[in-house]
Amino acid sequence: MSPKKAAFATAESMGRSQRDISVSEFFLKNRHLLGFDNPKKALLTAVKEAVDNSLDACDEAGILPEIAVEVVQVADKRFRVSVLDNGPGIVRSQIPKIFAKLLYGSKFHRLRMSRGQQGIGISAAGMYGQLTTGNSTVIRSRTKPGNVAHHIEVQIDARQNKPVILKDAEIDWAPRFTPADVDGVPSEPIDSKHGTCVAIEMEAAYVKGRQSVDEYLAQCAIVNPHLHLHYRICLLADPAANGGGTAESAKEAAPQPAGAGWVTFRRAVQERPRQPLEIKPHPHGVELGMLIQMLKDTGAKHLKSALEQDFSRVSARAAQEICERAGLDPHARPAAIAHRESEALFNAMNNTRLMRPPTDCLSPIGEAQIIAGLKKEVQGDFFTAVTRAPEVYRGNPFQIEVGVALAGPGGGEDASGDEPVRLLRFANKVPLLYMGGACAMTKAVAGVNWKAYGLAQPRGSLPIGRAVFLVHMASVWVPFTSESKEAIAHYPEIVREITFALQECGRRLSVHMSRRRRQIELEKKHSFISLYLPHLALGLKTILGLSDKDEAAVLGRLRKMLERTHLEAG
Amino acid sequence: MSPKKAAFATAESMGRSQRDISVSEFFLKNRHLLGFDNPKKALLTAVKEAVDNSLDACDEAGILPEIAVEVVQVADKRFRVSVLDNGPGIVRSQIPKIFAKLLYGSKFHRLRMSRGQQGIGISAAGMYGQLTTGNSTVIRSRTKPGNVAHHIEVQIDARQNKPVILKDAEIDWAPRFTPADVDGVPSEPIDSKHGTCVAIEMEAAYVKGRQSVDEYLAQCAIVNPHLHLHYRICLLADPAANGGGTAESAKEAAPQPAGAGWVTFRRAVQERPRQPLEIKPHPHGVELGMLIQMLKDTGAKHLKSALEQDFSRVSARAAQEICERAGLDPHARPAAIAHRESEALFNAMNNTRLMRPPTDCLSPIGEAQIIAGLKKEVQGDFFTAVTRAPEVYRGNPFQIEVGVALAGPGGGEDASGDEPVRLLRFANKVPLLYMGGACAMTKAVAGVNWKAYGLAQPRGSLPIGRAVFLVHMASVWVPFTSESKEAIAHYPEIVREITFALQECGRRLSVHMSRRRRQIELEKKHSFISLYLPHLALGLKTILGLSDKDEAAVLGRLRKMLERTHLEAG
Repeated sequence: MSPKKAAFATAESMGRSQRDISVSEFFLKNRHLLGFDNPKKALLTAVKEAVDNSLDACDEAGILPEIAVEVVQVADKRFRVSVLDNGPGIVRSQIPKIFAKLLYGSKFHRLRMSRGQQGIGISAAGMYGQLTTGNSTVIRSRTKPGNVAHHIEVQIDARQNKPVILKDAEIDWAPRFTPADVDGVPSEPIDSKHGTCVAIEMEAAYVKGRQSVDEYLAQCAIVNPHLHLHYRICLLADPAANGGGTAESAKEAAPQPAGAGWVTFRRAVQERPRQPLEIKPHPHGVELGMLIQMLKDTGAKHLKSALEQDFSRVSARAAQEICERAGLDPHARPAAIAHRESEALFNAMNNTRLMRPPTDCLSPIGEAQIIAGLKKEVQGDFFTAVTRAPEVYRGNPFQIEVGVALAGPGGGEDASGDEPVRLLRFANKVPLLYMGGACAMTKAVAGVNWKAYGLAQPRGSLPIGRAVFLVHMASVWVPFTSESKEAIAHYPEIVREITFALQECGRRLSVHMSRRRRQIELEKKHSFISLYLPHLALGLKTILGLSDKDEAAVLGRLRKMLERTHLEAG
Repeated sequence: MSPKKAAFATAESMGRSQRDISVSEFFLKNRHLLGFDNPKKALLTAVKEAVDNSLDACDEAGILPEIAVEVVQVADKRFRVSVLDNGPGIVRSQIPKIFAKLLYGSKFHRLRMSRGQQGIGISAAGMYGQLTTGNSTVIRSRTKPGNVAHHIEVQIDARQNKPVILKDAEIDWAPRFTPADVDGVPSEPIDSKHGTCVAIEMEAAYVKGRQSVDEYLAQCAIVNPHLHLHYRICLLADPAANGGGTAESAKEAAPQPAGAGWVTFRRAVQERPRQPLEIKPHPHGVELGMLIQMLKDTGAKHLKSALEQDFSRVSARAAQEICERAGLDPHARPAAIAHRESEALFNAMNNTRLMRPPTDCLSPIGEAQIIAGLKKEVQGDFFTAVTRAPEVYRGNPFQIEVGVALAGPGGGEDASGDEPVRLLRFANKVPLLYMGGACAMTKAVAGVNWKAYGLAQPRGSLPIGRAVFLVHMASVWVPFTSESKEAIAHYPEIVREITFALQECGRRLSVHMSRRRRQIELEKKHSFISLYLPHLALGLKTILGLSDKDEAAVLGRLRKMLERTHLEAG
């Protein structure tokens, strides 16, 4: 059947129009996937990607992080985001690719807990800045005290997904950033001889509230108590007067005087968190296709040694057992194992009991720290936290932590008493502020029967109450629902672990709630009885013919008795 | 500061570990982004990607589509999905890349409405099959009656994101698929001399219900009335007996006899939908960075002609006006226009009044078809549909359609009366079954004040009632919240258009609801009065001294009067 009109395609004409799509083009068109769908969210996403990178770099290099974040409004709808850290710096040759090439990085190909994992975030922020303002990403970095510092300006060539370098200069690195050095470098002095500063100008909007940069940084400081963080936002006095975000208005914009307006979240602990280690995949949960690939790639000569070397928790004995179970020769060449045999191996691996994955690849927040964090959020009379043992999904170790804080008594009775609890979500110590509705954490909280633990709860929704819930997932690979890393995908293993942690908190909450209820009842009873005590005393006086003095004494004794009973009962 | 332990990284060691990440590796690790996070969803996603491709190919080639979908359980947790179409076929050289390379296709680089747009879907399904079973994707295709047909088996090399061809043979193409030809080809006879058949084996699960393959295909047939669709699912009699999904059990599995169990959704209209045309970007909403790129790429010699040629709705006069407003010479070389000038041009473009984007790039379902579809879903007494005029977000034309169907009276009173309305979501005529909570369509429905239109509605939620809502977005580029294309991102322009369409339906609903309410009240009044009519007649008889016969006559006249009043009021 040939096409009836010229407008219709044929297999041949379709074939000619097929072509490669560069990953940058893809994400440029789909920038909402990266968290750049609106100006408010774009500002948060840019800050988040830069801060996450700084924290990761400091943690990996064993440096106590000090970070300055400056957000300057340069025109009505235009902001410059600058993030400066005291990290290890970046070698010159890597700077262009790290900041202007999507899917490039050091964190993707390893199994180790870190904030970044995709090799997309900061390049995406730069690409968005370029798309909306035409401007370059400006990076300054120095790796060691003696070394020169580099000033590099890059754009991304979206067609080819590669960096275009517009400026590459050696500069002096002031021992501390001075207030004069305001062009894209935060003017808060960070006294460091090395570090990185990235500045991106972009179309953005600043709005206060639960999804703001302010909130993000505050939550960041809570779960990273070893972080010393400076932050300021400089808004134009009258943004409307500056009109449509032209280059002219950017020049006219006068940021607040340097040094002014900085807020500092002080370092609360002087120790770095335990350094999470890189691990190998755990055999349980590795997919068949991945196993086949690993057998092809292994450096080991024999199947048995490949199992021992390339997987975690496979001892010599376990490797032998797996081979026997699969009916395979332990000395077989791994690459020679055909499709059918790898399937037998796959089943044998999954049916062999193995130790759970090592926990030293994960760095949880910790129960004490969660409770300390919650105490900053809510004036409560009940705090609890649970850090679960690590579990595995698809071969990836992960660990769930949950905290619950309840506002003091009377909290449930006031006007805001029918609001759902507030849920703070974290993944690898990064606060998640958007897309709560799509997140496995929200699903798990809504899925627990909170009525059993003393909280009201509409069917299938978050429980009601003046409470704050905190959920943290630490993992060598967090499965986000999109590249913007705002919500966690609904893997059943993950939802189940969160549920268990929530239920444990729920049981503790339930003890507290029934004690509180008993307390309230006792107080009611007490106030009721004490109301009637004088009448009782009067009655006794009449019946027994007591004097006024005796009456007062009886009343006093009755009161004391009541209080004692109350205390015992309480 | 040098690292304190060997375990700490330096800028140099970090630099050495930086590397490229292939897009296949990225999505293999993030397969939940593509809709393959659990076995049930994986089955649906695979069917969806294959059917969408078949429909797109037929529509583009001007062929009335006939498609057969066969889902065969080959082991406990393993299914083979086969989709056969009567489309134009695929030229041999393109088959490997189309089915085993991510980000490759013909639909990404054009502005034209189609179901597929990313160049990811079907390759992702194949990659998931390969990951979970180790098996290849099998494609058979013939492009013309006289041509040979090709049988190709491919896998994806994830490291390099390129196809590996495992089999490439020329085969006979039976004029119709025969029942004997069961190895991955649906045995339903499709009498076509050309077409494509793709078969993928994968770990999957089949579950009936609102997120099932059945539901997907049923909704597909509703919004594609020109589609003739055959579907069957062959489940193992006792899946548990077949054990752990081994290759052995796959061979043992005996599908139902060919030809059995097919369900056919018959073609309802014989005309193809209007062929949507490819368009150029509309100047309103094109981003600055994109404009700069377009000026660099244009084939036009002068700025003015570049504006006319590369954008839609820019007449010679409008181009002149834009140049003047920007203070630019209409005869300037486009590539020579520097950053600063492009920004002036950008502002001028956005401040110049232009015709709305052309509508012939979009192919809406149509109000009549929406109502016909809703009538299949609900036994109702109220149906309405609205197709809005096209609008633009980020330069992309889009068009919103909404339908509302209400179950007959009494529906609100029964046991299911507190359930939220059912929301059917479609994007470019593709049903969206997952992630409703994250979708702009759900947000828009929940954001309308349905109480004003007579429906109960909990705060910030879907309205309550035995009703079905349908929302369709047609666009040259649908902004999905993830690569799995299940929910639409919250662009304000899109939410606003959906809201307007819903409100229009709401107003019509409101008229119906108040008529229904009046009707119910009148009926109540009527039955009340008619209950007392005999007593009234008896009273009159006593007072006026009427005979029994007169009493009956009075009663009759009273009844008639009552009915007349009722009819007039109704």
